[in-house]
Amino acid sequence: MTRDPFDWIDASAEARRRAGLVRTLRPRPAEPDLLDLASNDYLGLARHPEVTGAAARAAQRWGAGSTGSRLVTGTTELHAELEAELAAFCGFEAALVFATGYAANLAAVTALTPSGALIVSDAGNHASLIDGCRLSRAETSVVPHRDPDAFRKTLDGHDGPALAITDSVFSVDGDAAPLRELAAVCQEAGAGLLVDDAHGLGVLGDGGRGTAAEAGLSGAPGLVCTVTLSKSLGSQGGAVLGPAPVIEHLVNSARTFIFDTGLAPAAAGGALAALRLLRGEPGRAARARTVARELHQRLTSAGLESAAPDACVLSVRAPGPQAAVQWAADCRAAGIAVGCFRPPSVPDGISRLRLSARADMTEGDIAEACDVIIRTAPRG
Amino acid sequence: MTRDPFDWIDASAEARRRAGLVRTLRPRPAEPDLLDLASNDYLGLARHPEVTGAAARAAQRWGAGSTGSRLVTGTTELHAELEAELAAFCGFEAALVFATGYAANLAAVTALTPSGALIVSDAGNHASLIDGCRLSRAETSVVPHRDPDAFRKTLDGHDGPALAITDSVFSVDGDAAPLRELAAVCQEAGAGLLVDDAHGLGVLGDGGRGTAAEAGLSGAPGLVCTVTLSKSLGSQGGAVLGPAPVIEHLVNSARTFIFDTGLAPAAAGGALAALRLLRGEPGRAARARTVARELHQRLTSAGLESAAPDACVLSVRAPGPQAAVQWAADCRAAGIAVGCFRPPSVPDGISRLRLSARADMTEGDIAEACDVIIRTAPRG
Ligand SMILES: Cc1ncc(COP(=O)(O)O)c(C=O)c1O
Ligand SMILES: Cc1ncc(COP(=O)(O)O)c(C=O)c1O
Repeated sequence: MTRDPFDWIDASAEARRRAGLVRTLRPRPAEPDLLDLASNDYLGLARHPEVTGAAARAAQRWGAGSTGSRLVTGTTELHAELEAELAAFCGFEAALVFATGYAANLAAVTALTPSGALIVSDAGNHASLIDGCRLSRAETSVVPHRDPDAFRKTLDGHDGPALAITDSVFSVDGDAAPLRELAAVCQEAGAGLLVDDAHGLGVLGDGGRGTAAEAGLSGAPGLVCTVTLSKSLGSQGGAVLGPAPVIEHLVNSARTFIFDTGLAPAAAGGALAALRLLRGEPGRAARARTVARELHQRLTSAGLESAAPDACVLSVRAPGPQAAVQWAADCRAAGIAVGCFRPPSVPDGISRLRLSARADMTEGDIAEACDVIIRTAPRG
Repeated sequence: MTRDPFDWIDASAEARRRAGLVRTLRPRPAEPDLLDLASNDYLGLARHPEVTGAAARAAQRWGAGSTGSRLVTGTTELHAELEAELAAFCGFEAALVFATGYAANLAAVTALTPSGALIVSDAGNHASLIDGCRLSRAETSVVPHRDPDAFRKTLDGHDGPALAITDSVFSVDGDAAPLRELAAVCQEAGAGLLVDDAHGLGVLGDGGRGTAAEAGLSGAPGLVCTVTLSKSLGSQGGAVLGPAPVIEHLVNSARTFIFDTGLAPAAAGGALAALRLLRGEPGRAARARTVARELHQRLTSAGLESAAPDACVLSVRAPGPQAAVQWAADCRAAGIAVGCFRPPSVPDGISRLRLSARADMTEGDIAEACDVIIRTAPRG
């Protein structure tokens, strides 16, 4: 070998180090040693005994893996049950479960946008939707964040299939898309609307039925929603919800469905148990939202810069990437886990702490967390 | 709403029906009612009590989900343990675990091919590698199947980073890539080599250490391997194996790592238990290969058309898609589950049965399966 074929990596590693943007993995222990404001476990269900018990039983009963792609051996009766209950809960005709939410988004975007179609995509959309656009044979037009008028203008005059794509709750700042307006725009233009409800399911809508339910749009003919099983439902996986012909189309053509191993039974079982808990205890969603509002109120009262949360995600602005890293480290040292988002994983280049509210936080937890975040905030 | 924005789907559904290419999901019960020659559970570990027990315990101990992306809250000590043992077993410096093998492939391809790089990709590569090429900023050149000379000619004269990409064992026909030759070509050209060992891990190499081990290439500086945890290891997930700086680069830049929820603890725990079983019982890999050779020998002796298997996957040619579907249905009616691959999920448009060998098949199972497959074969 004359040279290391990956030597170009060294330069980018060096640049990362100089810019203070190195990421490192921090394995966590089984017993939580920090108060969690960093995860997406909005309802506190990932460690709920009914959820972990159902996951454990599913592994024992159905196997540790699904053993093949969904169309070969990877569909169990448990997957079918989860799909039926998820569709019914969210008010859609049909649902299709994927191994990840990421895969569900890749599938929905690519399978619903044939060659010649137009995609109109919000500039703040999640990476998985963006990757879906890049994999699609259609042309993509990116429009400004949360701007129905930009969607309308871009769709105007396009002939043939079109799909508008948006997160329901944007993953970094926790702001919500103007869903009703977007649906009206799409209806007028004859375009489909794909909504990624990763951060809405379990939190928004009556009893946590999601953003479409909140907007009175569940099951609308032109609407397709994706969800993840990995956030409010405390498990792993994703799903696409929509009209039955759309779901049948995905079964037959979505590459991340056809060519990926089916979701592990434990994850399907865990998510199903979480869904049933949510159905049985509809107050969980409202409690999570209340916690988010209370966190926001306390932090902004102390002078921190944070937009009012539309769901369970809050972001608090930091002066720069190094300051954000230091702030998060100081919080951790004081017992509070917070997320730290820096370039290149923020669309606008602004570094921030990302905080998440959980339905199972006590008033004491909220006070303690805010106290630490405020106390450790960078001065300036 | 004036028209259904997804009405264009109806035409493709109708075309599918006319061509006999409709796919339907067939949920399976918890107690296997068929002799399985369709899954990728090559070592029969998906239902092994040590594997399912470890998966169940991991869900109880660590939660049903990992609760966040690997860089935020989604890395547990269990993930770190799995990565260390996987890297050591396969003979690589480091490993990084993903939520699926599909995601691991998307990550490896995109993160190792910057803009201006050249990708040379075998025409028979898996969908996830192809999608990785389409997501990459680099230019992709697809070369004929298993043709080191075509790789050499395409790499020749390219200046700057280059990556050759191949499955180790191709997923449809089970034929193996000429790995040693490809490694020599890459070394000469200064190109990296990415090998998807989804169907090699647990089956090929000393004790199932994988295709790189078999070729004496484990840990070679220019080599990166991807594996899945969903086939021989009977679980879910994927991993990238390679030099430590490559893995660090993935942590910092791979979108399907940074923006996806970490693998569920149950899947990580199940895969780790399977890996330990494999290490403790090195005969499993050889037994799986023996079963595959025996299946092949019996089927071809009866006049069926099938290439000699290089690992655990065999494909048996069918005269057309309808005949293949009927053949698979007849096998199922007689108690044998086989895969049925048809366009568009076969690269060459040829319909076939896809059979997989399992280490835990008895001689009686082999005889029974072959008897049914031969008896139900289309005449012609
Ligand atoms: C908005 C959004 N969509 C999709 C995903 C992907 O879902 P998953 O992590 O379950 O694959 C995420 C987070 O990971 C997300 O935040
Ligand atoms: C060759 C190959 N690579 C990658 C994958 C994807 O792995 P996973 O299903 O674990 O996501 C598969 C099968 O699904 C495969 O056959």
